[in-house]
Amino acid sequence: MGIQLETSVCGLFQIRYPIFLAGMAGGPSTVKLTAAVSAAGGLGTLGAAYMEPAAIRKAIQEIRELTDLPFAVNLFAIEVRDDNTRIGEAQQQLNLLRDKLGIPHAEDGPVLTPNLFREQLAVLLEEKVPVISTAFGVLPPEYMGQAKSAGLRVITMVTTVEEAVLAEQSGCDAVVAQGSEAGGHRGTFDVSQHPSGANIGTFALVPQIVDRVGVPVIAAGGIMDGRGVAAALALGAQGVQMGTRFLTAVESGAHASYQQALLASTEESTVITKVFSGRPARGIRNDFIAQWDAGGLEPLPFPTQNTATRDIRNAAQRGSNAQYMSLWAGQGTRMLTSGQKAADIVAETVRQALAILS
Amino acid sequence: MGIQLETSVCGLFQIRYPIFLAGMAGGPSTVKLTAAVSAAGGLGTLGAAYMEPAAIRKAIQEIRELTDLPFAVNLFAIEVRDDNTRIGEAQQQLNLLRDKLGIPHAEDGPVLTPNLFREQLAVLLEEKVPVISTAFGVLPPEYMGQAKSAGLRVITMVTTVEEAVLAEQSGCDAVVAQGSEAGGHRGTFDVSQHPSGANIGTFALVPQIVDRVGVPVIAAGGIMDGRGVAAALALGAQGVQMGTRFLTAVESGAHASYQQALLASTEESTVITKVFSGRPARGIRNDFIAQWDAGGLEPLPFPTQNTATRDIRNAAQRGSNAQYMSLWAGQGTRMLTSGQKAADIVAETVRQALAILS
Repeated sequence: MGIQLETSVCGLFQIRYPIFLAGMAGGPSTVKLTAAVSAAGGLGTLGAAYMEPAAIRKAIQEIRELTDLPFAVNLFAIEVRDDNTRIGEAQQQLNLLRDKLGIPHAEDGPVLTPNLFREQLAVLLEEKVPVISTAFGVLPPEYMGQAKSAGLRVITMVTTVEEAVLAEQSGCDAVVAQGSEAGGHRGTFDVSQHPSGANIGTFALVPQIVDRVGVPVIAAGGIMDGRGVAAALALGAQGVQMGTRFLTAVESGAHASYQQALLASTEESTVITKVFSGRPARGIRNDFIAQWDAGGLEPLPFPTQNTATRDIRNAAQRGSNAQYMSLWAGQGTRMLTSGQKAADIVAETVRQALAILS
Repeated sequence: MGIQLETSVCGLFQIRYPIFLAGMAGGPSTVKLTAAVSAAGGLGTLGAAYMEPAAIRKAIQEIRELTDLPFAVNLFAIEVRDDNTRIGEAQQQLNLLRDKLGIPHAEDGPVLTPNLFREQLAVLLEEKVPVISTAFGVLPPEYMGQAKSAGLRVITMVTTVEEAVLAEQSGCDAVVAQGSEAGGHRGTFDVSQHPSGANIGTFALVPQIVDRVGVPVIAAGGIMDGRGVAAALALGAQGVQMGTRFLTAVESGAHASYQQALLASTEESTVITKVFSGRPARGIRNDFIAQWDAGGLEPLPFPTQNTATRDIRNAAQRGSNAQYMSLWAGQGTRMLTSGQKAADIVAETVRQALAILS
């Protein structure tokens, strides 16, 4: 078609193919997966939102030992503050889940979450990571200025046209338009305005953002193969971000039972829920979600719900019990493959896209 | 790209372009709009679900006076049965809305909805309409047999892979894969299983259905222009169904204040609600939805809720009060145009798609 696979973002981010790895915080994101996607010609992304600054620095150095090519590090661009006003009733609910797993009840008292954002960001600037990507908001002006003067690129994930305009005004180099099909956290900036996140389908979201901003738009949500890449470019996107497809890659850090749940799931398996973190995110419906919802209690705000549920999710991982893990997944899981290396996924996706585009 | 605009559905349905008008029951669907889309090379569709059999017969004859080209008539493929078990409390809620409009309260007693489906279907078969399309389910076997032996084509709208497989097994010639972006009623077969409808984004739904069925897949949901057509074909669809884009066409029957609400809306304006009909449908959030939801009452099942709310929606139309109409709309309304003839919308969409595909 009148469209090439090599788009403006290839030059902008110094990559061969306009394929971006989603920043998957928690288990799935590994140094090896990040480096593998970059080495294959895409842009790998380390999902570092929950990582200690020292661990991020170490990971960045390990990525650089594996590849000389550009990569991104993704953070949640918010100052976290715990809200413990309802912690007692929340812990009561969570203790019912702890009983199911046979782990100790929570100790009384408030939940405390360290506010790491500015320290994490300082590491990214000191290490001069080629690309900083953010979810939940834009980089604060002073950091955007430092990133730009250091020659770093900045990407912001958005879920509405209004957020895309705000991101462009903040000075970012590109926006990721996250459609409702996407797995994991909704990138929505203001969840008080959108309690379940803004959930606009990729087909509707991408062209409406392309029509309103001047920076390149990277499409995300339901893109699992070369058909999705070609379709995203047809809608006016300059690239794609894929997360779910890489969860079952050889280099993925997703727990084996999480990967089994993904491969057994269908387009009907996921829901958008706040029960794991306090922010809306798409994952496979499981016992954790069903049991919390049965209690009828509103989850605590992010990050308090996330911190309060961590011991349960960790115990579920130790016990290989997918029913109590957060099984983040998009709506395209029938298109997942098993046992492929990230490099093979990128190559296969590129081949398929080129066959359609040529 | 390695893709042509002229696809298998062009031969199958004897149309020039693989562009299908959605069957928009109620006001929007008119004889003129249906005929105009067919005359422009697409497949016009009369949304006849709520029409009396005699009115359908008259409309079919009028369409044939306007064009010799093929067209479709869309029905809801279900036997309706009223459920009046909660009619009293529902009418109490609705009377609050009637007070806002200054119209009489509902009379006591049950709501009665005529079960027109088989009579409507009989007219379609007698009139030998070129294409029968259905929502909410498939044609009953005996009617499918009659349609096929009469040389008529049958299209079924689906919202999941499982529904697509059922539709193919029923013998339909093509399926419309309705993504969550779509405006109006969700085509979901079993709403007891999916109370809010199955809401899979177009980007994820289309390729997963293409991978599972042999019949052509027509993509729907968020497709507003030639970019959407090219993207749908890239995903493996053989055509597109567009509804919202034609709501503001010159030939649209949508009320002027409904059209104004559409043109003033954004991708954030719609919700999926059961308050108007009892079945989940996507429309622009307005006072009717807000006031019913504030009451906290579960809507009655379809069609009882639909029949019970009709006097309110009709009064809102007479008073040009968009706050109490059902403002069905998809998530792509920023891409709407004003004052275009349907033929110009088809021509512009085709030009744009060809520019991308060539």
